[in-house]
Amino acid sequence: MIRTPYLLFLGDAPDPLAAKVAQGIRDWRPEFAIGQFRMEGCKADMRLPDMNFQEARAAGAQTLVIGVANRGGVISKAWKAVLIEAIEAGFDIASGLHNLLTDEPDLVAAAQAHGRELHDVRVPSVEYPIANGEKRTGKRCLAVGTDCSVGKMYTMLAVDAEMRAQGQKSTFRATGQTGILITGSGVPLDAVVADFMAGSVEWLTPDNEPDHWDMIEGQGSLFHVSFSGVTMALIHGGQPDALILCHEPTREHMRGLPGYKLPSLQQVRDTALTMARIANPDCEVIGISVNTQHLSDAEAVEYLASVEAEMGLPAVDPFRQGAARLVEALVGKQSNLAA
Amino acid sequence: MIRTPYLLFLGDAPDPLAAKVAQGIRDWRPEFAIGQFRMEGCKADMRLPDMNFQEARAAGAQTLVIGVANRGGVISKAWKAVLIEAIEAGFDIASGLHNLLTDEPDLVAAAQAHGRELHDVRVPSVEYPIANGEKRTGKRCLAVGTDCSVGKMYTMLAVDAEMRAQGQKSTFRATGQTGILITGSGVPLDAVVADFMAGSVEWLTPDNEPDHWDMIEGQGSLFHVSFSGVTMALIHGGQPDALILCHEPTREHMRGLPGYKLPSLQQVRDTALTMARIANPDCEVIGISVNTQHLSDAEAVEYLASVEAEMGLPAVDPFRQGAARLVEALVGKQSNLAA
Repeated sequence: MIRTPYLLFLGDAPDPLAAKVAQGIRDWRPEFAIGQFRMEGCKADMRLPDMNFQEARAAGAQTLVIGVANRGGVISKAWKAVLIEAIEAGFDIASGLHNLLTDEPDLVAAAQAHGRELHDVRVPSVEYPIANGEKRTGKRCLAVGTDCSVGKMYTMLAVDAEMRAQGQKSTFRATGQTGILITGSGVPLDAVVADFMAGSVEWLTPDNEPDHWDMIEGQGSLFHVSFSGVTMALIHGGQPDALILCHEPTREHMRGLPGYKLPSLQQVRDTALTMARIANPDCEVIGISVNTQHLSDAEAVEYLASVEAEMGLPAVDPFRQGAARLVEALVGKQSNLAA
Repeated sequence: MIRTPYLLFLGDAPDPLAAKVAQGIRDWRPEFAIGQFRMEGCKADMRLPDMNFQEARAAGAQTLVIGVANRGGVISKAWKAVLIEAIEAGFDIASGLHNLLTDEPDLVAAAQAHGRELHDVRVPSVEYPIANGEKRTGKRCLAVGTDCSVGKMYTMLAVDAEMRAQGQKSTFRATGQTGILITGSGVPLDAVVADFMAGSVEWLTPDNEPDHWDMIEGQGSLFHVSFSGVTMALIHGGQPDALILCHEPTREHMRGLPGYKLPSLQQVRDTALTMARIANPDCEVIGISVNTQHLSDAEAVEYLASVEAEMGLPAVDPFRQGAARLVEALVGKQSNLAA
């Protein structure tokens, strides 16, 4: 658990895109984002108050979150000096960098000297159990994709936000480093040892109130040969009651796999349901989330209508249209289950 | 790669069953098993020459393999003294124990002093790549099970042995610690980090001669919610041309999961083929291996005949009947592919 709220470290970001993590926090957990810290030459701006470490501490910030991808994956000398200053000012530090904070002896020494914590969200910090498959109370929804990087995290963050806006009980459950930094907790599933993958997902989505929904961030795709095992563990460890299919309609091949075509939504629906019903016979697909960023408004509307007609399920782009119709489908399922 | 041949360490085995690894080596790689080393009170006997370390070294043994499960998973003081003696006599040591050899400073020091290697086959020693899904030359057969521990390793060792006896090109590819100790190499798949599972299987089964078969040891089951992700990675990383379904017909529920019934062979066939054909559209199920150890001879014959009729595929118990009919089906597939 990363202590909130945050001061967002934008460093010397070479461009706004490099600050994807900071952007995610500002968009999805604005209440965690007290301010931003920028170094000379920083090309990103979250439009948050620029604060030095003393100001941010005084405003209540607990953790400096590395909100930016660094060059070459290493912690530069310039960054190092700044991070040590932050620790001395009383900050924990949280990072998803490939270069682990805890592999840097001077950061570790500073954190020990000042009683602060270093969070490397790229590596698991918990000894997860082996999955036991036992039915848990509460409800769970999982995003499954036709491919990697089609908008599963965005979709589930949007559904979770809409659920809570409607007064429903919902918790976003992060399974990747960006999601963990945004929400302050989760499981870095791609870094979990094979035998404990499904168990880590069970651990992440424990017993809960009967009308509480875990919105589980998906990873990979059953149809992506590099990462399908990770997706499988999510489906069985998460024992979802509901699936949301996620798709990006302009991909010519699976991400990183030029020889592999994307599956159809029907194929993903059928395969994912077959597997999901092993752990939860009541599982249903409740809707489809389409990332239409590469389509015009008119194309997007037309495409969504055609998917909706073909699949007989609500099809929306939550970025363009919000997630209300997906929530409606989920809440409908909830009443059906209760009936 | 573990250097062969071996001296088999049986330690103070409390009963013959504890020496499962030694038994596997003696059964499947008798040419690796130069002799056995037993301590006082050992209740296991591989019917190999009892040798001290000097005798075994003189006979050519390179590695002392821990062929026995120890009590409580720890390396006792009594074992420790003996293992250090072995290192001093010029042995490498290979072990699948939970208590790693390399976590014992005195073993590490002895190995360094004498220039010997310590192999903990429970943990990966290779940085595996992320799977790229590219089609490889050569052929691959994978065992997939209705459940865990139904005889997948045994089946593939038997098929591999029969292939080689018939003069076919075949290599058993171990994916678990017992298989690795038996054959001297492999991937401890259950200990590989999630993102690299499929890549480790690609690494294990590289390009080969067009008529060479990799016989890939299966793990878990697509229908076992604790380990299905591992099975999935084997199916996509292995890109098999052929599957052999493995089954144990007397199980009342999935191993370790009282609430989960076993799937039918039809369900496993359909699900495994759907997933396998993503990576290899030509994949086929070529036969069924049934572990009939809990059936009488008559029951076994009757059961196998009924499976064969239902599935339209050869169904054999390789322990009782040998693997010739499975090999026949594989070699038939090979001619079909070539045609």
